[in-house]
Amino acid sequence: MNSFGRLFRLTTFGESHGPALGAVVDGCPAGIPLGEADIQRALDRRRPGQSALTTARAEADKVELLSGLYEGKTLGTPIAALVRNTNQRSADYAAFGEKDRPGHADATWRARFQHQDRRGGGRTSGRETLSRVIGGAIAEAFLAKQHPGLHTVAWVSQIGPLKAPTPLAPPTREEVDAHPTRCPFPQEAGEMAALILSAKENFDSLGGSVDVCTQGMPIGLGEPVFGKLKARLADALAGIGAVSGVCWGGGDILGDIALPGKRFHEGNVQAPSARYGGIQGGLSNGEALHVRVYFKPTATLGDMAKAGRHDACILPRAVPVVEAMVALVLADLSLQTLAFPHGL
Amino acid sequence: MNSFGRLFRLTTFGESHGPALGAVVDGCPAGIPLGEADIQRALDRRRPGQSALTTARAEADKVELLSGLYEGKTLGTPIAALVRNTNQRSADYAAFGEKDRPGHADATWRARFQHQDRRGGGRTSGRETLSRVIGGAIAEAFLAKQHPGLHTVAWVSQIGPLKAPTPLAPPTREEVDAHPTRCPFPQEAGEMAALILSAKENFDSLGGSVDVCTQGMPIGLGEPVFGKLKARLADALAGIGAVSGVCWGGGDILGDIALPGKRFHEGNVQAPSARYGGIQGGLSNGEALHVRVYFKPTATLGDMAKAGRHDACILPRAVPVVEAMVALVLADLSLQTLAFPHGL
Amino acid sequence: MNSFGRLFRLTTFGESHGPALGAVVDGCPAGIPLGEADIQRALDRRRPGQSALTTARAEADKVELLSGLYEGKTLGTPIAALVRNTNQRSADYAAFGEKDRPGHADATWRARFQHQDRRGGGRTSGRETLSRVIGGAIAEAFLAKQHPGLHTVAWVSQIGPLKAPTPLAPPTREEVDAHPTRCPFPQEAGEMAALILSAKENFDSLGGSVDVCTQGMPIGLGEPVFGKLKARLADALAGIGAVSGVCWGGGDILGDIALPGKRFHEGNVQAPSARYGGIQGGLSNGEALHVRVYFKPTATLGDMAKAGRHDACILPRAVPVVEAMVALVLADLSLQTLAFPHGL
Amino acid sequence: MNSFGRLFRLTTFGESHGPALGAVVDGCPAGIPLGEADIQRALDRRRPGQSALTTARAEADKVELLSGLYEGKTLGTPIAALVRNTNQRSADYAAFGEKDRPGHADATWRARFQHQDRRGGGRTSGRETLSRVIGGAIAEAFLAKQHPGLHTVAWVSQIGPLKAPTPLAPPTREEVDAHPTRCPFPQEAGEMAALILSAKENFDSLGGSVDVCTQGMPIGLGEPVFGKLKARLADALAGIGAVSGVCWGGGDILGDIALPGKRFHEGNVQAPSARYGGIQGGLSNGEALHVRVYFKPTATLGDMAKAGRHDACILPRAVPVVEAMVALVLADLSLQTLAFPHGL
Repeated sequence: MNSFGRLFRLTTFGESHGPALGAVVDGCPAGIPLGEADIQRALDRRRPGQSALTTARAEADKVELLSGLYEGKTLGTPIAALVRNTNQRSADYAAFGEKDRPGHADATWRARFQHQDRRGGGRTSGRETLSRVIGGAIAEAFLAKQHPGLHTVAWVSQIGPLKAPTPLAPPTREEVDAHPTRCPFPQEAGEMAALILSAKENFDSLGGSVDVCTQGMPIGLGEPVFGKLKARLADALAGIGAVSGVCWGGGDILGDIALPGKRFHEGNVQAPSARYGGIQGGLSNGEALHVRVYFKPTATLGDMAKAGRHDACILPRAVPVVEAMVALVLADLSLQTLAFPHGL
Repeated sequence: MNSFGRLFRLTTFGESHGPALGAVVDGCPAGIPLGEADIQRALDRRRPGQSALTTARAEADKVELLSGLYEGKTLGTPIAALVRNTNQRSADYAAFGEKDRPGHADATWRARFQHQDRRGGGRTSGRETLSRVIGGAIAEAFLAKQHPGLHTVAWVSQIGPLKAPTPLAPPTREEVDAHPTRCPFPQEAGEMAALILSAKENFDSLGGSVDVCTQGMPIGLGEPVFGKLKARLADALAGIGAVSGVCWGGGDILGDIALPGKRFHEGNVQAPSARYGGIQGGLSNGEALHVRVYFKPTATLGDMAKAGRHDACILPRAVPVVEAMVALVLADLSLQTLAFPHGL
Repeated sequence: MNSFGRLFRLTTFGESHGPALGAVVDGCPAGIPLGEADIQRALDRRRPGQSALTTARAEADKVELLSGLYEGKTLGTPIAALVRNTNQRSADYAAFGEKDRPGHADATWRARFQHQDRRGGGRTSGRETLSRVIGGAIAEAFLAKQHPGLHTVAWVSQIGPLKAPTPLAPPTREEVDAHPTRCPFPQEAGEMAALILSAKENFDSLGGSVDVCTQGMPIGLGEPVFGKLKARLADALAGIGAVSGVCWGGGDILGDIALPGKRFHEGNVQAPSARYGGIQGGLSNGEALHVRVYFKPTATLGDMAKAGRHDACILPRAVPVVEAMVALVLADLSLQTLAFPHGL
Repeated sequence: MNSFGRLFRLTTFGESHGPALGAVVDGCPAGIPLGEADIQRALDRRRPGQSALTTARAEADKVELLSGLYEGKTLGTPIAALVRNTNQRSADYAAFGEKDRPGHADATWRARFQHQDRRGGGRTSGRETLSRVIGGAIAEAFLAKQHPGLHTVAWVSQIGPLKAPTPLAPPTREEVDAHPTRCPFPQEAGEMAALILSAKENFDSLGGSVDVCTQGMPIGLGEPVFGKLKARLADALAGIGAVSGVCWGGGDILGDIALPGKRFHEGNVQAPSARYGGIQGGLSNGEALHVRVYFKPTATLGDMAKAGRHDACILPRAVPVVEAMVALVLADLSLQTLAFPHGL
């Protein structure tokens, strides 16, 4: 199904080689300041062709808002947004004709749907994340009003074998965007860029990881059993195309779990630990939220990479997508928490 | 919220120190052979007190089926099951009185709900997983009928710093249950057991990882955008109490993503790779499903561990819970796939 | 499916001739005063055997609460309740053996589920409404706290061809319960009682209508397009066994629609009209809610009525069921309205 | 919320005086023949300005399909459709300025959303039904493939005090469309037309009823407890703007319930009765489905009717909307029935 969220709900549509992609957000409260510029700014961060590191597919990705706004504020009605495809060039894909693209889901998809879009990846294309970014921008507009002080920022923490250090404090989005790799450590960023360009020349690809941190979290978001904050984030982030793993907790949490409990929880018997990632008992504990998302290298390689227009490394462009999914989860859980007047 | 699943849906209830815990499964098709023994067998694998490695809380965990069955088969109506608590001993917890238990979610929970069960962990207790195991046993009964040949098995792959090797083929449940650690490699299992006993004596705790593999998978389970098979599994598994991370792909996938794409996908341009974990484009590709789940060490330490009755290492008892959550996801996606007669 | 509601959600289970029936309410906020007595009181109003007018099936319908409560208040966790069947007497039904009961859904049900409970009506039995009454009692406990002054009362307004007048103000529940027909007009109630006793002697049955009115309504409950207050009520009330129609608006609204608009809306151009039934644009307008529910005569007739234990007229016992469904809708919409902080 | 359906799901958007209205259908299986012409044909039946009986607002209501199709068949992905508003003329409404329109939901809506579209009715306008008709056309395309022989037809059965007879067999859509009133009885249709024209001249309005019948129904659609076929239809039809009541059963079912059971069920102890409306135990019984929908006269009267562009009687244009909602329910329940392989 193509909807995400329970109360703040995103429905997405569109094939990468069809007329348009878009999104409908239902459940955004009325009275939130919002305009096309807010969404366009988010889309521009995801747009292909921002630097030599990304795909050559040139799409303006110009958004048009169709409903849900009046005099610069949301109406509480569904907000529909549209982006037309202008540079489909399906002919690039025609070369593959009836053959399945290796490492892709073509055969699996065909087994399921019995009818297939031969023009390109259709809904499995990374272009689908455009709709997520639209939804995320609307979610951020709501969160800015409902939880002033809440800020989410994601950055590239690993490309191939190159790992960036764990920052003492999360960077700003400006610091992240300062380098085309979206790694906020200049030296590591430079090495990562060189590695990506080399992979691009070899028609090879690279994976890595993105870290995301939300500061200014309210306490109590999430549900105790099903719908835990960490489960909702896992669902949201594991749903992004090439994601191979998700973990909670600042720094190298998956290494730290090898520690005995007394050391793992050390210094934390009084105050919540960074190793909890801002989540306890399924609910946010008011501390900063920390999540890491692992991406595998894309499967578009060799001749296929020569023919189509793909990113040798999608990590830099995944950063705004990760932020969007976190915003969608937090907006939805914020409404869900409001819904229940406990202790009235 | 306390329901899981869309079509095959589990609703759970019960506090760890209240009268009972239980589950209602709605959406199990009619005509599936099922009896109390099927559920009891699953509960017995999760039950405390199975070996010296687990908590001393002795609960018979005897299940009673209340509805949904007639002459040994499901009726297509809700299946309700009940387990009474017999050994609550809330007095153990009374010692903590009004103080919050360190490393626990008490303060977070109170901030959210304004009213709190002082008798013990309530719904945040690991005892809540009992209801998941009931749901999983019913899901497995359905899967056995709908997808003969489908088998899920989970095992302990890491305890503290001790890691088991990656098996060439997944073990059987009998092999897993042969050792109280539920690690199917005898030498590593022995070392792990010693480590757990030592942690228990020190009122310390240990984390680790559980691997799970499903063979005999049908092709095409999952959804392409939201509701991808990996997202549903992430949601399901991240919702288990102490889980800190989830990844897809056999072996050390989170290390492998550092490889360049040509090596990561090596040998797989023709056939799906084990590194895909049995999932492509969000859908099962018909290969075996591979997921790893990371658990942090529990926060019940020192004086608190002396007073209450907790596991120094929950990994062995988490094995049937992981299997249950996988079964619930697969049963739900199986129905969801049937619902859409593509290409009719 | 066997769940009702989106945020305040009732899940029901149990066959009329199985071990037990019950309900799980998920989404009731924490801190609401609630005890078994509140639910028992509601069940006693629905219970068979209250007067000579009802079925001879004697069930104590004693409720047991299994979870969700602590020190007399809700915990915000699922509230599970159980009622054991004590007087199943399936032998009464055995007479029908393999034959379908005329006018019943036996053949339809079998076509759908392929497996059938031959012990009696199973989930199609009116005994299923017991679970709705449990849910309604919990919903009323929440509404009493969240919307003090909100009161719902239902009464019998027609039995067979006998119609009661439209009261100037809704009666109290005490006035309604004063007569076994639950018609608050003594003369009409007497005639209705005589008609029911005569039908009972003839193994015949009678339909009619129940009116329901909620005073003290908050303004703005409901949704503008799908999920309108009237649509939610229609769904809730049309789901009760023998219901053949539902309409909104005080008095004889289905006759009044024949009036020209100027007369229909007469006197109401300034103030909301009783003919709107308290709903405008899909939302409650703050005036009293008025709904009428039409029931067809039950299909248990002649030899079948002699053998089983059925009501010749279910209307009097339907009154608390109608009230329960209204309470469930209002509780759910109340939470849903709270969830959206419009104009923050 | 603005979504309808569980598996075959319609999400709608758009204000009557904003840039566009539209719909996204998620859950339509792949491989269903569908084109813009199928949807345009349905919209043309709802379009204003078809005859002297309807509003003067002239909208071409030209649909554009944005996604979900490839080579004339559905892809199994979301189908998004758009209709631009071309004749908003909000100035007509400006006259009302800050005053609430009598009999309308302006005050109620403002109390809920705190922010209001002063350009016209926004989402409460009847123009919103355009999105339902788009959804219905897609649902009918699916039903044509999945259940050949299934046909739904609706017609006007009452306008003001004028009632048409109950037809022996349901008319065809061509017979219904032959007269601008959409009443298939020529004499009554003529009288109704005269009555509507007279109301129009007097800036008055008229209510009435629409009957709908589906032949070729499969057996077993619906759910036994919540989600009964009749409850789903009630929800769907009560959600249409001016609807005041819904009932099931051919002819004058709400009069017939006054009959004693032996006469009500007469002749039907062997075969299902027309008085059951094709539904037993919540499920379709394979007989024709019969529903009647009652509409109140619209509240746009006097000066308000002179200024804006409204229908004196919306019944003729409601006919395709009623059919659309029935199609959406049947498509959704058809998928839901397929999902559960009872008796496998």
